[in-house]
Amino acid sequence: MTGSLDIVGLGPGAEDMVTPEVRAALADATDVVGYLPYVARVAARAGLTLHPSDNRVELDRARHALQMALQGQRVVVVSSGDPGVFAMASAVFEALEDWPAAQALNIRVLPGITAMLAAAAALGAPLGHDFCCINLSDNLKPWDLIERRLRLAAEGDLAMAFYNPRSASRPEGFAKALEVLRASCEENRLISFARAVSTPDQSLLTVPLGQAVPEMADMRTVVILGNSATRSVGKFVYTPRFAR
Amino acid sequence: MTGSLDIVGLGPGAEDMVTPEVRAALADATDVVGYLPYVARVAARAGLTLHPSDNRVELDRARHALQMALQGQRVVVVSSGDPGVFAMASAVFEALEDWPAAQALNIRVLPGITAMLAAAAALGAPLGHDFCCINLSDNLKPWDLIERRLRLAAEGDLAMAFYNPRSASRPEGFAKALEVLRASCEENRLISFARAVSTPDQSLLTVPLGQAVPEMADMRTVVILGNSATRSVGKFVYTPRFAR
Repeated sequence: MTGSLDIVGLGPGAEDMVTPEVRAALADATDVVGYLPYVARVAARAGLTLHPSDNRVELDRARHALQMALQGQRVVVVSSGDPGVFAMASAVFEALEDWPAAQALNIRVLPGITAMLAAAAALGAPLGHDFCCINLSDNLKPWDLIERRLRLAAEGDLAMAFYNPRSASRPEGFAKALEVLRASCEENRLISFARAVSTPDQSLLTVPLGQAVPEMADMRTVVILGNSATRSVGKFVYTPRFAR
Repeated sequence: MTGSLDIVGLGPGAEDMVTPEVRAALADATDVVGYLPYVARVAARAGLTLHPSDNRVELDRARHALQMALQGQRVVVVSSGDPGVFAMASAVFEALEDWPAAQALNIRVLPGITAMLAAAAALGAPLGHDFCCINLSDNLKPWDLIERRLRLAAEGDLAMAFYNPRSASRPEGFAKALEVLRASCEENRLISFARAVSTPDQSLLTVPLGQAVPEMADMRTVVILGNSATRSVGKFVYTPRFAR
């Protein structure tokens, strides 16, 4: 018997945004590993063991998954959104780097609908031109680097999608990010707050950057800042395909 | 009878990457509109009219879709990948801007797996840290702006995903982009060419930037340039979650 490891994305929350490919991997799994609220989205069944774990133990979780796969289990590591965007795929490859024996395993990454794309769709099309995607948490990088990236992205007139804008432990980071953006962008630049997208708790708010306050974001919010051409049409926000 | 317009993403090619949400919209449609090869992915059935059109007529196609929805049809506009990433959603909102009567329509954007995320998953996790997404076609923006964005993204040490790297009509653009990137990044930076991802024609190639040649990309290729920390582990390429 040969074990396997699939690193899959469950999408932003709605069950009808989970791809059939991911659904099939879950149906075939013997073990599902992941952060507790994501594992809770997988239905219990005979022959399946669920292994929920706490936040911020990504590397331990990845090693546990690799170990079970080496023992012959069919393991699925679940992330919300897409596993390759600020989620578990990089953590598994980090664990793999120090574990040559595990490199022979059958490992697949199965993509999912990442939060910024579900948010953009709910809002209209704010990412319809060149854009960047930045994690505002300074858990894994220095704050100076975040500020530098914000300034450079603004200089390049890129739309920006922000993950983890405001954690409970570091609420001041997003206020600083807004200051940097206000210094680089015009006051009427559109900024959108998309919370709990595709779930019953979904809420959407778009304001001019000059009116944005940190409290508009929480841990379940993706923030999308438009480029200089982003505008409203009816209830939607979109970025034109062209630029001058 | 009230018409509706859904702008949906079919994902990169594999049928098991089409979300159930998009599948349901297609099953309920009276009319499907889109670029010919994407419309060809929708099965014919009684009660459904397919409206394939040529490339580069996005705005005409959007107006046609809005017109049919105003007449009471249930219209679905299809894009490959995600409709909000260099695809039809922005074109529909552009058309809507000049057509107040159509702004009362029931319009939804349904996300899909965009090519860069499917490519990243097939390669490992090269977009596992902050990144940007740039369309290298100069059909809709001046070439100078593309070069400026490449330089700024390199300065910010962002990984980069490139759409439309090399069109038949403008093969020289990608050669110029590689020159700009080589001037800004070290020679051994990893660059990946992911062609026809998730289809039977899929091919993956990763080389150091110094060895990349324009002929490695064609119209079906997504190109992903790593950041300064991106590396190989086994047959995979990944970008660590952390940065210094």
